Amino acid sequence: MAAQAAAAGAAFEQDIHHDPKQKPQNVCVLGGGNFGTAMAFLAASKSHSVRWYCRDPKQAATITSTRRNPRYLSDIELPEGLQATANVSEALQGATLVISALPAQATPHFIEKYRGDIPADAIFCCTSKGLYLEEGCFLSEAMLRAFQRPQTLAFLSGPSFARQICERHPTALVCASAKLADAVQVQFALSSKRFRVYASQDTVGVELGGALKNPLAIGAGMIEGAGFGINTLAAFVTRATRELTVLCVAMGGRPETISGLAGVGDLMLTAFGDLSRNRNCGLRLAKGESLDTILQSCTVEGVPTASVAKAFATKCNLDLPLFTAVAMILDGRLNVEDALDHLMSRPLGTEVPLL
Amino acid sequence: MAAQAAAAGAAFEQDIHHDPKQKPQNVCVLGGGNFGTAMAFLAASKSHSVRWYCRDPKQAATITSTRRNPRYLSDIELPEGLQATANVSEALQGATLVISALPAQATPHFIEKYRGDIPADAIFCCTSKGLYLEEGCFLSEAMLRAFQRPQTLAFLSGPSFARQICERHPTALVCASAKLADAVQVQFALSSKRFRVYASQDTVGVELGGALKNPLAIGAGMIEGAGFGINTLAAFVTRATRELTVLCVAMGGRPETISGLAGVGDLMLTAFGDLSRNRNCGLRLAKGESLDTILQSCTVEGVPTASVAKAFATKCNLDLPLFTAVAMILDGRLNVEDALDHLMSRPLGTEVPLL
Repeated sequence: MAAQAAAAGAAFEQDIHHDPKQKPQNVCVLGGGNFGTAMAFLAASKSHSVRWYCRDPKQAATITSTRRNPRYLSDIELPEGLQATANVSEALQGATLVISALPAQATPHFIEKYRGDIPADAIFCCTSKGLYLEEGCFLSEAMLRAFQRPQTLAFLSGPSFARQICERHPTALVCASAKLADAVQVQFALSSKRFRVYASQDTVGVELGGALKNPLAIGAGMIEGAGFGINTLAAFVTRATRELTVLCVAMGGRPETISGLAGVGDLMLTAFGDLSRNRNCGLRLAKGESLDTILQSCTVEGVPTASVAKAFATKCNLDLPLFTAVAMILDGRLNVEDALDHLMSRPLGTEVPLL
Repeated sequence: MAAQAAAAGAAFEQDIHHDPKQKPQNVCVLGGGNFGTAMAFLAASKSHSVRWYCRDPKQAATITSTRRNPRYLSDIELPEGLQATANVSEALQGATLVISALPAQATPHFIEKYRGDIPADAIFCCTSKGLYLEEGCFLSEAMLRAFQRPQTLAFLSGPSFARQICERHPTALVCASAKLADAVQVQFALSSKRFRVYASQDTVGVELGGALKNPLAIGAGMIEGAGFGINTLAAFVTRATRELTVLCVAMGGRPETISGLAGVGDLMLTAFGDLSRNRNCGLRLAKGESLDTILQSCTVEGVPTASVAKAFATKCNLDLPLFTAVAMILDGRLNVEDALDHLMSRPLGTEVPLL
């Protein structure tokens, strides 16, 4: 009896975990950079049929023949079953899941140009992080305008360096789509014992978390550049996460998302992880270099994002002191020392409003 | 007219920021260790009358005569107006605010022994972090039992290395007391341009955050010891923060506190900051040393705390996989590799329950 019950229990367990969506899909990965490589790596590891669009035909040919991306993470051997191509139509043909790792600002233009090639019933899953600067709006809004038709969008985000994904470090991300079934489809398509995806319906929260970590990374760099330690950095990240939560709720998202992988999870990776261009920009600003000089040597996406974030806050009539300070320093209207003085002299209050 | 209105506005501003509680208080600091030094430093910087109890009479005499603590942070010059003593009654006499930096496990015994010397109308502000292991309860519960009378308790917590406080790195903490007025009194007594205190009434959340960071620091060490990178660490801290939030709500606290300075703020300091004994313990466990060997060389407070936390979770019938895994590894019932395998193979789900 006990053995029977146990067997029935095991069958029940297996049954609820059984997943029809784990059947191989036609996956198209867009973008031959670091994150595109990690996505192609993941999808091919799960035995999907993977076509991978890289703009450069030579790069595509080398990937297909050598199973290595000559330009990014070139020491990583890619799984079998990957077909790279510089032909967009070929890459997208018959795809049920499109994973885009194109630069955020280039994504709406790409969609506009190639929407005829993107199957209308495919899930378009975006891994790029950022607000759309040309129109000062969410990337999803610009993407849907570019599609000129309804299209299922999903956003995959969270603390993840591409190299560590390919080196099989355990990684956890969140995938958000308006309807849970679509987020779940991406979740099951990509999850493995080393890559765990959580599903969500809060696309606003997931988009905002990923986008606004860039200006906050600039702030983290400023703190480091001003010579302050981890007490200051942890206070900054924690209070900035709170501001991000307020902004997220104001934009229609959920506070829990900002407490999650796409929010504070990604922020701590950025604030404590390797030196990004955003963080380096903050560091150089704190040491007295001008923003113009810094931007001559590289693009720093957090700079324009900070203005868009500040514009969102102004439209909502929200007081977000840390975001404002970062934006004002970038505008040259405040220096790091004065910003700090100002922030630490604000009236004292409760950590969270009482009601 | 405009000038008058501006002047009236400025006066109004000044008036609402004016604070009667900023008058000097009689502060007694308990404990001659790192954090006691930082607290004495802070209180004396704000021109309070500060008496500082250190158990060792020689240490107390050296502090009073040289304005340096010979045993901790000895390179830090302490402000004037500090009087150190090894006489408990003398230290506590007339105190309006007692700031305790005694070891967590020693605090209830200290109170029991000296409650007659602690003014009944003083705020007893505890900076020690931990659950009370002898009784498997909150430190505040054991403290109140030891007082055998009502006493105003406050808890000061958040991301703060003592050295960085004394070196004037901008630091932000939260102080919680059941009645807001008491938290505010501590807030105003200690806040400055380099040390910012936020007030809270959520003593449960503030106590739990500080206490449970220790077992989580062991987990962070295990991840490092197993050779995994920041993807894994950020996922662990984020998901562990979620488990801590669930436990906090179950114990009567507020989720926002765990998203704040005493929660995720302190956790990230611990997970990414300097090597603590807890983290080092996790690191050595992951490399195959036995817990017995490790505990022979030092006390690791996170070890017993993990059992108490697990007992709390069991009593609430809560499934907290990360806390459980850390506790099971410490009990020798699971190794790090198997724990990881198990955690990454759990059924997939949403990041946050739908309802």
